[in-house]
Amino acid sequence: MPPELDPMLFGEIDPPQRLLMGPGPVNAHPRVLRAMSADLLGQFDPEMTGYMNQVMALYRPIFGTTNQWTMLVDGTARAGIEAALVSMVAPGDVVLVVNFGRFGLLLTEILGRIGAVIETVEAPWGEVVPFDAIEAAIHRCHPKLVATIHGDTSTTMAQPLEGFGELCRAAGALSYVDATATIGGMEIAADRWGVDVVTGGLQKCLGGPSGSAPITISDRAAQHIGKRRHVEQGIRRDDITDGVGPRIGSNYFDLAMIMDYWSEKRLNHHTEATSMLYAARECARVVLGEGLDATFARHAKSGAAMTAGLRAMGLTVFGDDRYRMTNVTGVYIPDSVDGEAVRTAMRDLFEIEIGTAFGPLQGRIWRLGAMGYNAAKHKVLLTLAALEACLRMQGFALPLGAAVPAALEAWGQ
Amino acid sequence: MPPELDPMLFGEIDPPQRLLMGPGPVNAHPRVLRAMSADLLGQFDPEMTGYMNQVMALYRPIFGTTNQWTMLVDGTARAGIEAALVSMVAPGDVVLVVNFGRFGLLLTEILGRIGAVIETVEAPWGEVVPFDAIEAAIHRCHPKLVATIHGDTSTTMAQPLEGFGELCRAAGALSYVDATATIGGMEIAADRWGVDVVTGGLQKCLGGPSGSAPITISDRAAQHIGKRRHVEQGIRRDDITDGVGPRIGSNYFDLAMIMDYWSEKRLNHHTEATSMLYAARECARVVLGEGLDATFARHAKSGAAMTAGLRAMGLTVFGDDRYRMTNVTGVYIPDSVDGEAVRTAMRDLFEIEIGTAFGPLQGRIWRLGAMGYNAAKHKVLLTLAALEACLRMQGFALPLGAAVPAALEAWGQ
Repeated sequence: MPPELDPMLFGEIDPPQRLLMGPGPVNAHPRVLRAMSADLLGQFDPEMTGYMNQVMALYRPIFGTTNQWTMLVDGTARAGIEAALVSMVAPGDVVLVVNFGRFGLLLTEILGRIGAVIETVEAPWGEVVPFDAIEAAIHRCHPKLVATIHGDTSTTMAQPLEGFGELCRAAGALSYVDATATIGGMEIAADRWGVDVVTGGLQKCLGGPSGSAPITISDRAAQHIGKRRHVEQGIRRDDITDGVGPRIGSNYFDLAMIMDYWSEKRLNHHTEATSMLYAARECARVVLGEGLDATFARHAKSGAAMTAGLRAMGLTVFGDDRYRMTNVTGVYIPDSVDGEAVRTAMRDLFEIEIGTAFGPLQGRIWRLGAMGYNAAKHKVLLTLAALEACLRMQGFALPLGAAVPAALEAWGQ
Repeated sequence: MPPELDPMLFGEIDPPQRLLMGPGPVNAHPRVLRAMSADLLGQFDPEMTGYMNQVMALYRPIFGTTNQWTMLVDGTARAGIEAALVSMVAPGDVVLVVNFGRFGLLLTEILGRIGAVIETVEAPWGEVVPFDAIEAAIHRCHPKLVATIHGDTSTTMAQPLEGFGELCRAAGALSYVDATATIGGMEIAADRWGVDVVTGGLQKCLGGPSGSAPITISDRAAQHIGKRRHVEQGIRRDDITDGVGPRIGSNYFDLAMIMDYWSEKRLNHHTEATSMLYAARECARVVLGEGLDATFARHAKSGAAMTAGLRAMGLTVFGDDRYRMTNVTGVYIPDSVDGEAVRTAMRDLFEIEIGTAFGPLQGRIWRLGAMGYNAAKHKVLLTLAALEACLRMQGFALPLGAAVPAALEAWGQ
């Protein structure tokens, strides 16, 4: 066996101390990492169910909601998306996807597997979908569900969502928003937007590891999903009856059963991922402890500083300025520069990761994030100073020493 | 807001120090808990993909295989089961489930949602399915897949699997085994059994938290699954083509895409749950460091000691003695005793959790586990001593002081 594949030679976990300034995942808050070291509990121990109830309470303000059904799906952010869609959508249902990037495409990919009839209303990468286009599409296709992304990191655009849920409700449709890339960094206002289901992830602005997907579900959506309840034969009880709607196409992602698990019924489903629940709980405590408005302002200042610094270097920022996410910035790779060589130099010399891009933007832009624990002045400044040095070493002519002062000014001091 | 629901009042994570001697989850090994405190890495950083390759190498001996495709599904053990089934089975495929407990029923529940034609061959709870019954069922229904459970904690039975995979192959069927409750505690011999896909979980004999599902996939099964590959539109590349088979019904659980993610292609799928990967890696290092044979022997001695102690108290052990799992023991609740009162006293007085039961066994048996980090002499003895005291306080007449010496003798010293 070659030595690099001999398990007995693998040492203790010891990753390099790297600053992750890409589109996520980012470095987790040390408090979150430490919370995962707490010992486990039995899944129905009163302290464990107590922690589950606390998580429900902690994520309501983060989602901007009073929804009872605010909890976790045990998987990465993508698991939350699939749980939402497979539980709301039955085969043959018409679903309208508001698509302006890779993650809008992902919604269509997941919906295709569910057997939905997919309609889309689109914007080019780097723009958002105008409200009246959404309205027209709804009236054209009469969807049962309208699904979109809040912030699509593939394009760095944030879709405006004021009035979105109301528009859907008025047309008799449910609504869904994936907020993985914005939750904890930009305001999520599930109730004010009138959105039925919103999902997220920990690994971006919440400053945790990937692997747990917070979700909130309106009473209206919970009722819709409850009609599709189908309790497993091995754990049937007299006090829980099946619904009349079509059975949900996944067992693991069956939100009707997951709600029963998180309810006082405590109907067994999966074994809750306890360490990830501890992480999710601590992510929320960090954010609420700082205060949501303060957290959002910190992300906005970080994004403004990053953008100002990049522009001061003579680089061109990607996308419609009015709708850019505050926590990730796309910037064109100059024609004369090898984008991957710069990323490698950033990593090898400075232990800083910046992001590449997907699909039509691959090789055209870098993506620089400042999220969660990394949405901090010194980390933005370090990133800009390092990038300036790497660009210079690549022979790119730029005004030396301009980025850091410009970023500081944009930060507001 | 009532104080118990005010997020600002929730303190640091601080669970009670409880000994989890039920059917799992159990206390995680402290090394595993500490490994999760390591900082995160970008998902395509060379050190991260290096750790992914190490995890593949570490789990091969644990599964008893040389399969290239040995990796993690990001979710609880149930996620691994669903990923295996939805990726192998297309709607309309005949699947034979070898069912002898709650988790056999779970396989049928998941398969029903996939749209499989489900056939079963069954044993009463507390027994296993005879080999010739499986053989006859295969010849009766000509399945495309035969699926079963190795150790079903609901009944404490371990299905013998020598020759199981060969039998399926001879009939042209793929085979699947869920080994969640035995992996790391009893031998898993994927290659010797000739089984195509085996899945597990961390939270039992591997001594980790729930939330990551190790999986191994034979080349034959990988080829079958690869025919169903369907790359997402947002990340299509020229070097990866779609298969001709029916698209897999789930995006998150699409093992074709998950294999592409774990391959040198590194095709983006989910964002790997890094902290859980660190945990899975450390679980494997703990087990391989002790040595698999030594680990299995420790579980066998723990189970033998627990069983001997329970019998010395005058209790009756549940299930066919020839096929009982080594790491969890079912025992009848005496008629004169309130089972839940004993469990509560165990928890409140001794901070020890023992398990209740499901379905037809609910209220009839307790389940006592000794798994992973808790498969230790002193923990078995503490559990028996505490149970003796609690039974005595419930007024149950038993030979005082007999359990601990009997357990010690069974331990072998």
